Amino acid sequence: MMRGEWATPALIVNGLAFAANVTAMSRALPGAKLRPHVKAFKSTALAKQLAAAGHQSFTCATLAEMAGMIRAGLGHDLLLANETVNVNALSAVATLAAEHNARVTIAVDSPATVEAAAAAGIAEVLVDVNVGLPRCGASPERAPQVADLARDSGMTVRGVMGYEGHLMMVEPAGDRRDKVKASMEILAVAAAAIGGDVISAGGTGTYNIHAELGIATEVQAGSYTLMDTDYGQLGHPFVPALEVESTIISVTAAPANGTGWLVADAGLKAFGMDHGNPSWNHGDVWFCSDEHITLAPHEPDRWSVGDRIRLRPAHVDPTVAKHDEMIVERPDQTHEIWPVDLRGWTIQ
Amino acid sequence: MMRGEWATPALIVNGLAFAANVTAMSRALPGAKLRPHVKAFKSTALAKQLAAAGHQSFTCATLAEMAGMIRAGLGHDLLLANETVNVNALSAVATLAAEHNARVTIAVDSPATVEAAAAAGIAEVLVDVNVGLPRCGASPERAPQVADLARDSGMTVRGVMGYEGHLMMVEPAGDRRDKVKASMEILAVAAAAIGGDVISAGGTGTYNIHAELGIATEVQAGSYTLMDTDYGQLGHPFVPALEVESTIISVTAAPANGTGWLVADAGLKAFGMDHGNPSWNHGDVWFCSDEHITLAPHEPDRWSVGDRIRLRPAHVDPTVAKHDEMIVERPDQTHEIWPVDLRGWTIQ
Repeated sequence: MMRGEWATPALIVNGLAFAANVTAMSRALPGAKLRPHVKAFKSTALAKQLAAAGHQSFTCATLAEMAGMIRAGLGHDLLLANETVNVNALSAVATLAAEHNARVTIAVDSPATVEAAAAAGIAEVLVDVNVGLPRCGASPERAPQVADLARDSGMTVRGVMGYEGHLMMVEPAGDRRDKVKASMEILAVAAAAIGGDVISAGGTGTYNIHAELGIATEVQAGSYTLMDTDYGQLGHPFVPALEVESTIISVTAAPANGTGWLVADAGLKAFGMDHGNPSWNHGDVWFCSDEHITLAPHEPDRWSVGDRIRLRPAHVDPTVAKHDEMIVERPDQTHEIWPVDLRGWTIQ
Repeated sequence: MMRGEWATPALIVNGLAFAANVTAMSRALPGAKLRPHVKAFKSTALAKQLAAAGHQSFTCATLAEMAGMIRAGLGHDLLLANETVNVNALSAVATLAAEHNARVTIAVDSPATVEAAAAAGIAEVLVDVNVGLPRCGASPERAPQVADLARDSGMTVRGVMGYEGHLMMVEPAGDRRDKVKASMEILAVAAAAIGGDVISAGGTGTYNIHAELGIATEVQAGSYTLMDTDYGQLGHPFVPALEVESTIISVTAAPANGTGWLVADAGLKAFGMDHGNPSWNHGDVWFCSDEHITLAPHEPDRWSVGDRIRLRPAHVDPTVAKHDEMIVERPDQTHEIWPVDLRGWTIQ
């Protein structure tokens, strides 16, 4: 298969941009200082590239991601940075981990999540501490009780995690730094009370602050690999590496005094739409339908039915989750397929 | 597996509501007057229910949907209501159709789409006519030339299609009717010039107008089966039949003078987000993360970690496309699994 031969819509990774992102992050947070978050790319093939760059431990958002990582031989040290009370699924992962000699750690923030982990035979947990984002995490005051309960249930408490997701986009950068520091001081107090040697936090938006502060022992960034438009505003040394290739299927010429348009074959089922429409370098996006996108080109005479175009998704993570595979383009014109094999919620 | 035992997030279909929707539509548009659009549900199991209700012909948005329908024995009369120049994929579908004695008709709106269909060995086409939506479709003036070109290429032109998608939500209903009528008069003129016996149009928003007008010979509605919140505003006799079941994984009690919240395990990867956040009968939705939804409950004391809740997606079609299966609940407490087997763009 050559460029231009694959069926559309297709996810395209710029291999050079991806490699540059991996290098830039590894320089700031080498080895185990980064625990890459697989939810951003849902691909064991991509994860293997990160492992080869020295990052052997990974963060997962679902037990299905964790099971897939174990089966792919990437189970050196996996953290579920999320709560669950699904004992059946936790048990399946615990069994799989034992079979593959993998290490799994589960976040807990309540008696119910501790009980589920213990009932499933999970050996190690982190206590998830709320550091300001209204989502999961025990309050800093209650977190030590959760740790005690986990130890009383026979599990090892490796430490704490806390996700400052509400601070990723704070501007200016100085304010972001101050607020992340305040969040991490909360987490450090909880860590001191709870014990263990892991303080896991952060993401692509704040990775550099963590590198400077040194409070978190590891950072849970994943979006930097393919890089979101939103995060791109922060001035980080990462470049967008993901586009959707689409074929123009209909061209309507402009009438006198009117505007013409193009239609391409990538619609709202091919893009994560929660951050809005994708963008196009060569014109305006009017709207997405299920399997179409209607575009007003800057140069109407340039485009014909059958031409291929590249569109940039507004949000990388959910875009990847809609596709079966990514096509990675290399500078030497070769390409490689990375299956998106960690989708869905079924434990394989 | 009993209710409450399946892993979450899970798509749940209310079997009674679905059956009522099918009955209501079949009454208005019996048999071949409805050509159900499979993009709305992407499931051959659901399509079989519609075939059993008398609708043997179907509309597809992708060639992958078409291939899946052929393989499932639902290839009596399939229309691709979309343009494509992918000769390889068209050829694969043409071959599959021949093997399974299926009938496939492809929409064309330009010389390039006619050439692709002819090159792939497609026997029958409809000419897609623009009736006002800025998307695909030849202008009414150019449509007869497209038909001539298709006939010159050896294909049969079955007639025309035109999708008045811009009129689905027009209020009040009288204006909607007048505008749909004007659109269909454009389509009827094109149909008279082109010949053939098919005039295909419409959707869930306008099905009742088509039933009254009688210009379109068939209506391409699909969303009525599971029914969208948006379409629910139109006063049609269809009821929402799809929810996402989710488990509460974290509860944060309200501080003095503050608001508490719940977190459940269905996030923006489990919902079509292009029409906004899902809704919840028992509280407000604050925001969706990849695998979480943060909710402010009306009755904070009512909810515990492990409780299951049901959320209503803002847009049914892309929500279904994110899941592997639908769990159909019957009034007698039994349930059935409908695989979502028509996802993606790969021809199986």
